Amino acid sequence: MALCKRRGFIFPSSEIYGGVGSTYDYGHYGVLLKNNVKAEWWRSMLQERDDIVAIDSAIIQHPRVWEASGHLAGFTDPLVDCRTCKLRFRADKLGDAQCGRKPSKRPGEGPDCELTDAREFNLMFETHVGPVVDSASVAYLRPETAQGIFINFKNVLQFARMKPPFGIAQIGKSFRNEITTGNFIFRTREFEQMEMEFFVPPAEAERWHQHWMDERMRWYTDLGIRPDNLMLRPHGADELSHYSSATSDLEYRFPMGFSELEGIANRGDFDLTQHAQHSGEKLEYFDQQTKERYVPHVIEPAAGVDRAMLAFIVDAYDTEEVEGRQRTVLRLHPRIAPVKVAVLPLVSKEGMPERAREIFESVRGRIPAEFDEGGSIGKRYRRQDEIGTPWGVTVDGQTLEDDTVTLRDRDSLEQVRVPVDGLADALEVRLTEPWRSPKLSD
Amino acid sequence: MALCKRRGFIFPSSEIYGGVGSTYDYGHYGVLLKNNVKAEWWRSMLQERDDIVAIDSAIIQHPRVWEASGHLAGFTDPLVDCRTCKLRFRADKLGDAQCGRKPSKRPGEGPDCELTDAREFNLMFETHVGPVVDSASVAYLRPETAQGIFINFKNVLQFARMKPPFGIAQIGKSFRNEITTGNFIFRTREFEQMEMEFFVPPAEAERWHQHWMDERMRWYTDLGIRPDNLMLRPHGADELSHYSSATSDLEYRFPMGFSELEGIANRGDFDLTQHAQHSGEKLEYFDQQTKERYVPHVIEPAAGVDRAMLAFIVDAYDTEEVEGRQRTVLRLHPRIAPVKVAVLPLVSKEGMPERAREIFESVRGRIPAEFDEGGSIGKRYRRQDEIGTPWGVTVDGQTLEDDTVTLRDRDSLEQVRVPVDGLADALEVRLTEPWRSPKLSD
Repeated sequence: MALCKRRGFIFPSSEIYGGVGSTYDYGHYGVLLKNNVKAEWWRSMLQERDDIVAIDSAIIQHPRVWEASGHLAGFTDPLVDCRTCKLRFRADKLGDAQCGRKPSKRPGEGPDCELTDAREFNLMFETHVGPVVDSASVAYLRPETAQGIFINFKNVLQFARMKPPFGIAQIGKSFRNEITTGNFIFRTREFEQMEMEFFVPPAEAERWHQHWMDERMRWYTDLGIRPDNLMLRPHGADELSHYSSATSDLEYRFPMGFSELEGIANRGDFDLTQHAQHSGEKLEYFDQQTKERYVPHVIEPAAGVDRAMLAFIVDAYDTEEVEGRQRTVLRLHPRIAPVKVAVLPLVSKEGMPERAREIFESVRGRIPAEFDEGGSIGKRYRRQDEIGTPWGVTVDGQTLEDDTVTLRDRDSLEQVRVPVDGLADALEVRLTEPWRSPKLSD
Repeated sequence: MALCKRRGFIFPSSEIYGGVGSTYDYGHYGVLLKNNVKAEWWRSMLQERDDIVAIDSAIIQHPRVWEASGHLAGFTDPLVDCRTCKLRFRADKLGDAQCGRKPSKRPGEGPDCELTDAREFNLMFETHVGPVVDSASVAYLRPETAQGIFINFKNVLQFARMKPPFGIAQIGKSFRNEITTGNFIFRTREFEQMEMEFFVPPAEAERWHQHWMDERMRWYTDLGIRPDNLMLRPHGADELSHYSSATSDLEYRFPMGFSELEGIANRGDFDLTQHAQHSGEKLEYFDQQTKERYVPHVIEPAAGVDRAMLAFIVDAYDTEEVEGRQRTVLRLHPRIAPVKVAVLPLVSKEGMPERAREIFESVRGRIPAEFDEGGSIGKRYRRQDEIGTPWGVTVDGQTLEDDTVTLRDRDSLEQVRVPVDGLADALEVRLTEPWRSPKLSD
């Protein structure tokens, strides 16, 4: 968290006004990292396969969407109040909570605690559309992007000429009025999702569920997450959502323990059937070849952008001792690293800054680059290590003589001498090569 | 609009539930186009210059942000009700409205009209954070992304080591509870903004205002908008917002006439001064060299993603007669076109689909491509023309003999024979070449 703030990845939101609980703003490198993570997700969904199309649906949808989806009736947390300390708790999480007067005790176990009965509290943010605040104008901020996909199922069948098995993918913000937030950007009220709904013939649902568990696991490991920090955990019968016949959580070993990074659910025909009933539209597929008409079943890998970022940062974070000094380094996969190459003059004289600037200008159009001439070379490298820049190019005295530069590798710290001519090409080749996280010092 | 729906760019939102007024969902090609437009904006802000950093702030910020910005008190429209027909109108736009009983008349001029006095109605969407609906929990959906930038000014100074002149850029959703929406995606209650706040020494404000008017104009024309469809219109004194000393609207010739595409404002020191007063933080810059301390002035180019998309689509839309048949074509700049190349077997036999598939697989990793084997070649080309695909590759009998394909240009309809070997290279080169919209037939 300190590095994220120090290097401008993530700031507490509205900080000059004292902040808003569990809300964060992303700074420069945070935005670049986030854009890269989203681009990699799109790439895996759209560019590396043919059977998925994209969608971007509105945050404020028709209120009946949430009636059909079950959110209006069932997307609730049970809450209890303490009449003494006025605090409010999740009834199902009292064990994790602290009494407002005696924090060493749990609510209900303090000497003066007077807890009310639990009542259900809906987690959707409510607002009003139009000038009149009445029941007809009530609308909700979507608590998930998935429903925006289901209600467009028919449009996609009709206009994108898809047939099962096929998927619809979406990235966008969702909102949940959580009582218990926390663990930095792990659980926030406003968050960004990457969800894909994959529509399949009912008999193939189990096979595709397995396929997507494998694929999503591979996505994280391909982008550098260490496999032993990932785990697939099937939900027990008591954990399953009302819509799901099987869900596995892809969990990551966060600092607070293994926690959900992504849920991969078999939603069956629940959503399409519900929306068909509530809207009166037929949401089914007619197979011209087999003459079969059926409601597709749905496999859903639902990831969080913010959680994925947290996992990538946590997994990449490393400290080691180099020549007697402590070095902090973010060993991010080059494809998601905010900056790919830093171009640095060794010292601020003898024409080095000018030559370095020229070299920077020659590569920046093709590869995200940064030019930095301020401070000692060691300090500049420490800064690039902390933002996870995989390669550093140093322009030194020899550069001015033979037009070569040193190319430094963030992880191995190896420096090789390469010609300036063809530098961008060399870097682009490195970017497409498979990459594995080096053995970390811890 | 018909093309947008037919080809899966844009759908009315929540359509199976009868829709939500002026709310749209983006389909597959809409998302690809939108992602490209946003990527080009980021490129112009971050990759082509050194003096701008990115940010991504929360939609639900501290309520005091809107107190300081003036939105809570002043972001209102004056409304009047008609007691007879129960309709509600903008008091300042009665001339454009229709009486609910006699649509040929204006409200107030119908025989039974009984209009109330105007009252101010705030355009911010209101919601409540936390479980209790009381005044302490009120929060707003941001009506603009700009304020999220101002409240992070100090963080950027401190952690991104920037000094004026420098900018902070953001892309994100904003929400305005407009009474009068319409013109497709031109004015919607939920919309996406691309805003950049450029902080400059006060004496340089006018010069930078001109710089950004030129730059933003260039951005649109570089991406193919015809210059005669763009116009810079300075605001009159009566139009200026409370925060602005000078604003010019960059207007586009939409089908309903020249209308605002982007506003480029000189906001002076209004925002930083307001937030400094309300938060108690010093939001100023101390110049080490001149020993001067000052509150930077702000130049703001504020664009709408949805409006930019509408302008790109409108500008690119063309119909012409080719060999006696009508052809509809989206002459999008190749850099923003959703798909860059379509690979099509001439007919579905003699090994052409298999060879076309191989060629498609060989280019898709490097360039957004589509493979299409269904229907006549003419029909498939019409489809690609309508989604604006700049190049088509046809695999025919000759391909199987000499490993060449025809490369068809969307605009000129010229077909040239090129070797399969090096096809991806050839396409990448074309993508980086300057492009100009061809003379349109209308």
